Amino acid sequence: MTELRNDRLLRALLRQPVDVTPVWLMRQAGRYLPEYRATRARAGSFLALCQTPELACEVTLQPLARFPLDAAILFSDILTIPDAMGLGLSFSEGEGPIFARPVRSATDIVRLSAPDPETELRYVMDTVRLIRRELAGRVPLIGFSGSPWTLATYMVEGGSSKDFARIKGLLYDQPELLHQLLKTTARAVTAYLNAQVAAGAQALMMFDTWGGVLSPRAYREFSLAYMAQIVADLTREIDGQRIPVILFTKGGGAWLEDIAATGCDAVGVDWAVDLGEARRRVGSQVALQGNLDPVALAAAPERLRAQVAQVLADFGPWPGHVFNLGHGIQQWVDPERALVLVEAVHELSAPYHAGADS
Amino acid sequence: MTELRNDRLLRALLRQPVDVTPVWLMRQAGRYLPEYRATRARAGSFLALCQTPELACEVTLQPLARFPLDAAILFSDILTIPDAMGLGLSFSEGEGPIFARPVRSATDIVRLSAPDPETELRYVMDTVRLIRRELAGRVPLIGFSGSPWTLATYMVEGGSSKDFARIKGLLYDQPELLHQLLKTTARAVTAYLNAQVAAGAQALMMFDTWGGVLSPRAYREFSLAYMAQIVADLTREIDGQRIPVILFTKGGGAWLEDIAATGCDAVGVDWAVDLGEARRRVGSQVALQGNLDPVALAAAPERLRAQVAQVLADFGPWPGHVFNLGHGIQQWVDPERALVLVEAVHELSAPYHAGADS
Repeated sequence: MTELRNDRLLRALLRQPVDVTPVWLMRQAGRYLPEYRATRARAGSFLALCQTPELACEVTLQPLARFPLDAAILFSDILTIPDAMGLGLSFSEGEGPIFARPVRSATDIVRLSAPDPETELRYVMDTVRLIRRELAGRVPLIGFSGSPWTLATYMVEGGSSKDFARIKGLLYDQPELLHQLLKTTARAVTAYLNAQVAAGAQALMMFDTWGGVLSPRAYREFSLAYMAQIVADLTREIDGQRIPVILFTKGGGAWLEDIAATGCDAVGVDWAVDLGEARRRVGSQVALQGNLDPVALAAAPERLRAQVAQVLADFGPWPGHVFNLGHGIQQWVDPERALVLVEAVHELSAPYHAGADS
Repeated sequence: MTELRNDRLLRALLRQPVDVTPVWLMRQAGRYLPEYRATRARAGSFLALCQTPELACEVTLQPLARFPLDAAILFSDILTIPDAMGLGLSFSEGEGPIFARPVRSATDIVRLSAPDPETELRYVMDTVRLIRRELAGRVPLIGFSGSPWTLATYMVEGGSSKDFARIKGLLYDQPELLHQLLKTTARAVTAYLNAQVAAGAQALMMFDTWGGVLSPRAYREFSLAYMAQIVADLTREIDGQRIPVILFTKGGGAWLEDIAATGCDAVGVDWAVDLGEARRRVGSQVALQGNLDPVALAAAPERLRAQVAQVLADFGPWPGHVFNLGHGIQQWVDPERALVLVEAVHELSAPYHAGADS
């Protein structure tokens, strides 16, 4: 494969010295970009966009053409796995994902099996291969998946939820059944992520979007334990190159030490936690990724730069920081403002890395 | 005034010994009760229900007739203050509160003034007086208010919000202007809570429902600082009886020490924090209120009792626990299940208080 010309992301995830702090943005290929909206219109639907490798590759690369980002992330949806399991995914405008056949009973759960990624999710693997070829070594490609708990919330609720009453009902009333669902889902996630690595993903991220709605005890038992198992089962090296793994539990600031102890390489942090305190808590065990409030992108350029400077100062002059938002970039963001952010990260972080040989 | 026959709540809030752990439920007067829905239908609208002292008193007392609760809480809405400021509150079915005249510009903010509670919010004070008379000393009455930050989010957004883009835009771009809004709102909250105490409230609670969407730095500057100022300005004793103050920041588990340091008597805790760890963190500085996941009320009675037992065990055999949910009770709850919860708290907590003379 082509040599990687910008390896800042991989170096930072492995806590190695870099010249400037690498930066990428969760959901960087998305609706805030007019060119994304144009491609999506051509695709006809969000799902068609995800399922057509040429178009998914195209939108993956769009933000890289605008901003000096240090990583690409596979354009896809976290719900591809349950869709491949036969739950019948669709997206209704404004209401988010909907499953035609949600998982509610023991019969539903027993019937599920982990899809084979290279056949049943081949369009994702083809997209990964295509992006790698098109990137031609410019920046590394991040592959991703939802966490088993997060996928299970959608599978049981049948879509988005406010209070997660159905899956928590399962958790409180039939915990063994929920464990069975999570086990199958965890097997599927492991196979899916390993297939992405085989197809060319150079780093992996697991999104535990809804781990934060659990109590600490339930989080450890129903979300973290499965992520830890997956981390242990992932391909972590290809051709002598380490494949770093990032775990991100939104709203999981209280559990950073536990997440760091899973054996992952980096922990995603939302803006509810001070990044300096997060670093002190996890020590040199892992790198950290985050954690600007996405709404800071609404601020005037100089105010936005000050917020970027604050996040960099919070983290301090240590190795192991990947700059990102604390959550996905929102659709109302002015792309010019995203450029301000990315340039500010590179410019304002340089002093923290002075003397580092990268 | 009539002597208080059940003072468990006040004793627990002041960390004094009790025979059993007192329990009440956030939003205990609410839509899960058929008798509430009947009264609301008679009132015509939610706002009319809040503004008619006889009806507001009636729904306040309804849960006490069903369950052996240890407190009544004033039935009202946190948005009465901005409504009295002239923002024009209404409620649309399913969409929540809407302000006809949200606060967006410097001109809007300068124009605001703190309403006089005994004239402009007289219906609330009349309700407090009526409830106290009707309670006749059965249990204490809790008065409440939203926190300045939480009220400001509704005032600026014009209603509920997903990302708080408008008020955070203000926070990042014009922090001085936001401070001006919060200052006026804090003055209004102080006067409102003190008027409730004068009218008969025997404990106070401040709901900071949206403090948890802030970064730690922003939380301290824009939410906690104003709550601390209010706590310092409240009437804390009437006729030799201490009026305990509870502060509750939803999603504020990371900041319990800071909240405890404001001088409040008790800190509300949601289910994202282990109550035992919360107690170790705040030590003997304050009492704690919480923290069962409201969705546990979906579980079968025996499973629900086990969850209650777990919360009691987490807190342990110390003074200063008021049992509650981590958030308001939801409308789908079977009232029979709420009875299971309340009875389980009294029954299962007794051993923790054995030997205490109360």
